Amino acid sequence: MPDPRSVEDLKKALKRLPGVGPKTAQRMAFHLLERDRKGARQIEQAIGQALSQVNHCRQCNNFCEAELCEICASTSRSPQSLCVVETPADLEAIEQAGVYRGKYFVLMGHLSPLDDVGPDQLAIRELMTLVSKNTIDEVILATNLTLEGQATSDYLYELLEERPVRVTRLARGMPMGSELEYMDPGTLNQAFTNRSPP
Amino acid sequence: MPDPRSVEDLKKALKRLPGVGPKTAQRMAFHLLERDRKGARQIEQAIGQALSQVNHCRQCNNFCEAELCEICASTSRSPQSLCVVETPADLEAIEQAGVYRGKYFVLMGHLSPLDDVGPDQLAIRELMTLVSKNTIDEVILATNLTLEGQATSDYLYELLEERPVRVTRLARGMPMGSELEYMDPGTLNQAFTNRSPP
Repeated sequence: MPDPRSVEDLKKALKRLPGVGPKTAQRMAFHLLERDRKGARQIEQAIGQALSQVNHCRQCNNFCEAELCEICASTSRSPQSLCVVETPADLEAIEQAGVYRGKYFVLMGHLSPLDDVGPDQLAIRELMTLVSKNTIDEVILATNLTLEGQATSDYLYELLEERPVRVTRLARGMPMGSELEYMDPGTLNQAFTNRSPP
Repeated sequence: MPDPRSVEDLKKALKRLPGVGPKTAQRMAFHLLERDRKGARQIEQAIGQALSQVNHCRQCNNFCEAELCEICASTSRSPQSLCVVETPADLEAIEQAGVYRGKYFVLMGHLSPLDDVGPDQLAIRELMTLVSKNTIDEVILATNLTLEGQATSDYLYELLEERPVRVTRLARGMPMGSELEYMDPGTLNQAFTNRSPP
């Protein structure tokens, strides 16, 4: 005696969310139908809105409702420097830190052969076209320091090497507030290799 | 520089799902918009369908698209016995085990003062009305053996005591396949108290 068809369909649909398995989907469906129908309506409408309105900025590839996102359209940000990140969340973290005043390019992911994400699934062609414009002096590779992020960075470096731009990457070392005792060997290795005068 | 309005709205909406915080909502929104727009459409439609079609069976209170669910409508199930469970998932687990051939009543939750779920938020009035019908001989309290489940069971027992029905609860003891070494004291306590001839 399974649940009614439309409850089963809802559970099946919710399982498409990342990190949601059968048990979680069941709990979510129960919650939406029994405890929060208003929230369910809100999710339904927010998905509809987002699907119809969210596209990619034609310059930086970030999510955007217009042709060009606010950062790309801004005249107060240096067009000489291009910071390449994996996701909008990474861009947001850099903006929060307030250290960077150039432009961005958002890959929307990283190379991950196991998940069928190769160079064609990322916006690498668009990145190369953008770099060809002669306003850009420096490309900062700011992918994550995970295996996939570093593979992506390495791949991009190979492509960019031939171009007349300076390519840099973010510094590697001990994070602020960290203690040597709890640091992993890889980080300590980087911290020693990249040591500098105080 | 936050995400576009409709992406922010989507993240806010997804946070209404149980167990989903800001980071997970962001990951889900990114996944839906960048990797699985088809899945997003599927979720949107499944929620709409479920909201419009799913109601409660007027007899057992389980989710149902018709007036009466299949179990309540079935003539092959004994109307003398009523098994009270917390959720549709609990009912499903009992059905899977195939040991019970009576009817059910689904409370749709358990008493939980901290979450503002009191007797009025559960379908306890409907349960009592159902028990008043003279077809029912036995009420099996099959709530979970959690604190809330047991409080719910105790509360129901007090209400049912005065009625001319037999009230039982599921046996407590060691689960099949379990090892004494790993059993918690509460379960061992129950297993000794309720011991029986082999």
